[in-house]
Amino acid sequence: MEIVRRILRMKEIVRGWHRQGRTIGFVPTMGYLHEGHLSLIRESKRMTDHTVVSIFVNPLQFGPREDYDRYPRDLDRDVEILSRESVDVLFYPSVEDMYPPGYRTYIDVEGLSQKWEGASRPGHFRGVATVVCKLFHIVQPDFAFFGQKDAQQFVILRRMVQDLNMDVELIQLPIVRESDGLAMSSRNVYLSPEERTVAPRLYQALQVGRRLVQEEGERDAEKIVEAVRSFLAQEPRIRIDYVALVDLEDLEPIETVRGPALLAAAIYLGPTRLIDNVTLNTK
Amino acid sequence: MEIVRRILRMKEIVRGWHRQGRTIGFVPTMGYLHEGHLSLIRESKRMTDHTVVSIFVNPLQFGPREDYDRYPRDLDRDVEILSRESVDVLFYPSVEDMYPPGYRTYIDVEGLSQKWEGASRPGHFRGVATVVCKLFHIVQPDFAFFGQKDAQQFVILRRMVQDLNMDVELIQLPIVRESDGLAMSSRNVYLSPEERTVAPRLYQALQVGRRLVQEEGERDAEKIVEAVRSFLAQEPRIRIDYVALVDLEDLEPIETVRGPALLAAAIYLGPTRLIDNVTLNTK
Repeated sequence: MEIVRRILRMKEIVRGWHRQGRTIGFVPTMGYLHEGHLSLIRESKRMTDHTVVSIFVNPLQFGPREDYDRYPRDLDRDVEILSRESVDVLFYPSVEDMYPPGYRTYIDVEGLSQKWEGASRPGHFRGVATVVCKLFHIVQPDFAFFGQKDAQQFVILRRMVQDLNMDVELIQLPIVRESDGLAMSSRNVYLSPEERTVAPRLYQALQVGRRLVQEEGERDAEKIVEAVRSFLAQEPRIRIDYVALVDLEDLEPIETVRGPALLAAAIYLGPTRLIDNVTLNTK
Repeated sequence: MEIVRRILRMKEIVRGWHRQGRTIGFVPTMGYLHEGHLSLIRESKRMTDHTVVSIFVNPLQFGPREDYDRYPRDLDRDVEILSRESVDVLFYPSVEDMYPPGYRTYIDVEGLSQKWEGASRPGHFRGVATVVCKLFHIVQPDFAFFGQKDAQQFVILRRMVQDLNMDVELIQLPIVRESDGLAMSSRNVYLSPEERTVAPRLYQALQVGRRLVQEEGERDAEKIVEAVRSFLAQEPRIRIDYVALVDLEDLEPIETVRGPALLAAAIYLGPTRLIDNVTLNTK
């Protein structure tokens, strides 16, 4: 595995692969890798000739009072994991190389970026869209892989790629969970042992909603959301940010479940914000 | 010459050229071609294996009270000109194909887009940056050619390409002028015969500024700008929008001319807005 720090070197490698007609798979990450990332990497390796994983904690997608500085980082461990997975390249650019002095270009996916996660994290998706557009230009992948935990991010990036006529196919893979149901996340490390025991209730609450729809035939979105909220409210250490039952394409709230839909939630547990979601299928 | 309407067909042609290792030159235009465009096309043909010219009157870069609807169009004449120049492809997409329902992705080059032309035309450069990014993704050129008349546009696009790590080299060519000095522009057709006789005063005024710097050694920007304004003010039919003496990189006003700088102006002549600029060189 080659570790590449410079953008120009990354482009050089990509040019070589393209000249040989090889396909490129890309897994953009912020590092501190877990099984969720590994599922993306393994699918990329299965589908493409060469796999690039990037590790870049992108300052642009963190708000001023968010956790950019303390976001968990462990490059040595990540390098070990990626070598073991036989990834071709770890792309690990510096902030200075990605955002040099005078940097001033930003991408907005309007409407989609302002709701749910975007409402709680202003500017977050502008940062995500901008950095992913840059990374796509640098790595020029045929396929890029994302986890469903960031379901809104996927909808936004898919829209960006389509709107800007970019030549990359985005692939979303299921959430990987701990044995007790907690969605894997680099941020889970923030949880105290006590919070960690409470955290699985987020997924349990979403399961309450899913059972209501898929087993009891409930179709009224308000009732489904209320059931999820009530379940979460039983635990006093949980503060609900949002519970949303939305259309899979435009992320607008739906009133009645008629086809596939996304049930998503964000909570605070102490200072830590956790997100999770499930897809609802009718019939 | 192939006339391509569909984005997918354009991408297919480009893929074929790339597979053969050919270079691509690109001249994005809004049509109603004049000698200025031809100078770009000829340079593209000289430098690259294949030349693509796009004609797309981009609604996104026109303000609600601007001239999108009456912007001059003459496809038959343009096709004749481009055939004569032996361009490989005329790319002529529809608005519906470029901005399908649900379109919502926009590119901002902050700071640079808000001043001068951007101050008079809010949203203009957002529209320009967005459409050019899209066109670059579709045509994937090695080189793209622009005229110096839109000097601010060039600075903004160069910044976008650099910031977003795009693989295209932007080339700016000198303004092509009528024999009386008027910068060629598709919008010159708006001028009444009487306005047309007055229009060359814009370039003459810029020449007054240039002579002051290059022949008389004036270095005080305020005095140079004032000389240009005074010259323009002699003609009552001219209404000055701005006269600016700015840095070539960041477009900020300079106080003292020390090296190369841009002297740019915009005026109204009746309802028509004209722009022009000259580069100032010291020594």
